[in-house]
Amino acid sequence: MSESNLQLRSLITAGGELQLSLRQAKTPEPAADEVVIRVLASPINPSDLGLLLGPADMSTAKAGGSSDSPTLTAKIPPELMAGVAPRIDQSMVVGNEGAGVVVKAGADAQKLVGKTVAALGGGMYAQYRVVKAAACLPLPEGTTPAEGASCFVNPLTALSMVETMRRENHTALVHTAAASNLGQMLNKICLKDGVPLVNIVRNAEQAETLRKLGAKYICDSTSPKFMEELTDAVAATGATLAFDAISGGRLANKILIAMEAAINRKLTTYNRYGSPVHKQVYTYGVLDTRPIEIDRTNVGMAWGVGGWLLTYFLEKIGPQATQKLRERIVAELKTTFASHYTAEISLIEALQPEVIQAYNRRATGEKYLINPHKGS
Amino acid sequence: MSESNLQLRSLITAGGELQLSLRQAKTPEPAADEVVIRVLASPINPSDLGLLLGPADMSTAKAGGSSDSPTLTAKIPPELMAGVAPRIDQSMVVGNEGAGVVVKAGADAQKLVGKTVAALGGGMYAQYRVVKAAACLPLPEGTTPAEGASCFVNPLTALSMVETMRRENHTALVHTAAASNLGQMLNKICLKDGVPLVNIVRNAEQAETLRKLGAKYICDSTSPKFMEELTDAVAATGATLAFDAISGGRLANKILIAMEAAINRKLTTYNRYGSPVHKQVYTYGVLDTRPIEIDRTNVGMAWGVGGWLLTYFLEKIGPQATQKLRERIVAELKTTFASHYTAEISLIEALQPEVIQAYNRRATGEKYLINPHKGS
Repeated sequence: MSESNLQLRSLITAGGELQLSLRQAKTPEPAADEVVIRVLASPINPSDLGLLLGPADMSTAKAGGSSDSPTLTAKIPPELMAGVAPRIDQSMVVGNEGAGVVVKAGADAQKLVGKTVAALGGGMYAQYRVVKAAACLPLPEGTTPAEGASCFVNPLTALSMVETMRRENHTALVHTAAASNLGQMLNKICLKDGVPLVNIVRNAEQAETLRKLGAKYICDSTSPKFMEELTDAVAATGATLAFDAISGGRLANKILIAMEAAINRKLTTYNRYGSPVHKQVYTYGVLDTRPIEIDRTNVGMAWGVGGWLLTYFLEKIGPQATQKLRERIVAELKTTFASHYTAEISLIEALQPEVIQAYNRRATGEKYLINPHKGS
Repeated sequence: MSESNLQLRSLITAGGELQLSLRQAKTPEPAADEVVIRVLASPINPSDLGLLLGPADMSTAKAGGSSDSPTLTAKIPPELMAGVAPRIDQSMVVGNEGAGVVVKAGADAQKLVGKTVAALGGGMYAQYRVVKAAACLPLPEGTTPAEGASCFVNPLTALSMVETMRRENHTALVHTAAASNLGQMLNKICLKDGVPLVNIVRNAEQAETLRKLGAKYICDSTSPKFMEELTDAVAATGATLAFDAISGGRLANKILIAMEAAINRKLTTYNRYGSPVHKQVYTYGVLDTRPIEIDRTNVGMAWGVGGWLLTYFLEKIGPQATQKLRERIVAELKTTFASHYTAEISLIEALQPEVIQAYNRRATGEKYLINPHKGS
C-alpha cells in the first residue's frame, strides 16, 4: 500500500475561524472485520458542505500554505458560533460516502480484496479509508467507482421520501428544487412506482430537464400564476406531503396553502379550523438560509412543518427495511440511481477558493466529485 | 317554555362584510334522545372569536339595527376572503360550549329534566338549545351554570396537552401565554400530576399570578435574560414539547433553540445536524397573528412545528379515552378546573362595539361569559 494517505480536515477554532487543511495520516491496519478502501470517488453533497464549511462566511476565505499542502481559512460570524460549540477545536474528517477498491482486508473480509465497493462512513475525502466490511456495498461487475460513489446519500434519501409518504399515509408528493440530482432520482422512482409527484422548479431550463425525464407535474415558482398552477397540480395528485430542500422564506407556506385550497375544493361544509386533512412539509435542505415563514391564514389547523433527516428515518425503520432499500439501489444503479457530475476535482483543488466557490454555489443539478488520487 | 329564543348569528357576505345579528328562532321539539337546554352561561373562548368575528378588521366595526335587535357590521380585508370561502353567505350559529337547565326532554331523556348540565355542541349563544342527551354532562349537585359553562374547551384542552405529552414520549412541557385561564388550569393539572411545566409569560403581574398557584418555572419573555432563563428552565425540566397560544413571530423558534441548547449541554460529541432529540412546538392559538418565523440555526434537524386542535386530538384517542378525561373534569370542577370571568354580558351587549373591543382584546387571564337570559 502507498505510504501517502492525504486526508482533508475541517477545524473551527474557538476564535471563530474555519481552517481547512490536508494532513498526511497513517493508514491503520484493518481489524479482522475491516477493509482498507483506496478511495477513488466521493461526491460533495449538500450535507458534506455543512460539515466542511460550517457556517463560515466564505466571502472572507483566504488561501494559505504551500501548493502541495494548501490551507484555507474563513471567518465564522460570532452569532453563529453557538451552533458549532460541540465541534470547536476538533479536527474533523469529511466526506459522507464514496467508492473505491479494497486494497487490504482483515482475516474475516478477505473475499472483498480487489473488489470495487461503495461505503457510507464519513471521512471519505481521503486517499485511504478503513471501514467495517459490513459497511461496504460491493458494486456489480463493470461498475466504476464514480458510478458507485453516490449510491448511499441521494438514492437512500429519495427512496426514503417515498417510504415516508407510505408510512405516514399520504399518496402523492411535492418536491422543491426538483431538478436537482436528488430530484431527478425521485422522479425516476415515482414514475416507476406510480407515485404522483409535483415538481417545483425555479426556471424554464429546470422544467425542461424534468420534462425530458417524463415528469408530469412541473410548477415554476417564478411563474406569475404559480399559486394557481401549484394548487391545480396538488388537486390533481392529492399530494398532502412535501419535501423541501429550500426551506427559507414563504415556499413551505405556499405549499401548505395550495394543499389546503386543493382539499377545500372538494369539501362542501365550512370548518372554521380549515380542513381536517393533515398537511406536512418536511425540510431537508437549506438552499435558502432565511427563516421559514408560516402565516397560518388559509392553512387551517391540521398542518406540520419539521426537519427531516435520512439517518433519523433509517433508525426509525430499522436495519431490515434499510437493507431492502439498499438492494434496490444496487439493482438500479445505472438507471434509476445514476448520478451525473459537473467536474472531478482533487483534494488540493477542493481547498482552492475559486473551486470552493463553484461547489458551494449549490446550484440545482450541479454536483462535484472528489477523486483523492487525481494527479497523484 | 318561553316563546322567545334569541340566537346570535354571524354571517360573512360575498361582498366582504361581516354581519352579526340576533334572530328570533323557533325552538324545535326535542327528539326522543334530545333535550332542550335553557342556556344560562356560555363563555367566549378564543376559538369562538374565530367563528364569531372571522378575519374581519374590527376597526371598521359599525353598530346598526335597533336597541332590542342590534346588528354589527365590519369589513373583511379582501386578501383574507379566500380563507372563509366555504362559509360565505351562510348564517352561522356561534358558541362552542355552555351550561344551563334542561327544561324539556324527549322520551328517552326524561331523567335529565330539571338538571343543570353542560354541553359542547356549538350554537350556545342562544336562549335555548336542543342537543343530544348524550352530549350533555350533568353537573354535580350545587354547581351553578356559570361554574359549569367552561367545562369542555379549556379543561379538555389542558388535559389533552398533558395526554399528548405522554403519548408522544415527552416528560415535561413548555406553555406560552401561561397565565391565561387555560394556563392556570394546566399548572394545577401539572402540579397535581407531577409534570414539570415551564411557564412563559409576558409581564411580572402574570408571573405573580402563577407563582401564587405554586408554579415553579416561570420565564418572562420581556426579561433581558429571557433566553438564558428559558434554557435553564428547559434544562431543569427536560421539556421537549411546547404548546404555544401566541404562534406569531419568533417565540416558537426561541423555544426550539432553548430546548436544543439544553440538550446540547449534556451531549459530549458533535453532531453536525444538531442533537437527535425531537423537539416539538404545537401552536393552538393565534394571539399574535404575524407569521411564525423559524430560523433553523441552532435548532438542528430534529424539530417540528404544527397546528394542534382539541377535536383532532380527541378523535385520535377515541371516545373511551375522551370519556376518562371528562370524568376527571367533573370530579375536579370546583378546584383544578375552576374558571374565572371578567364580566357576564347579555346577547345584546355581545354585539356592542365597545364590548366586542373588550372581549376581542384576548388579554391574558381575561374571559367573558354570555348569559343569554341576562336582562330578560
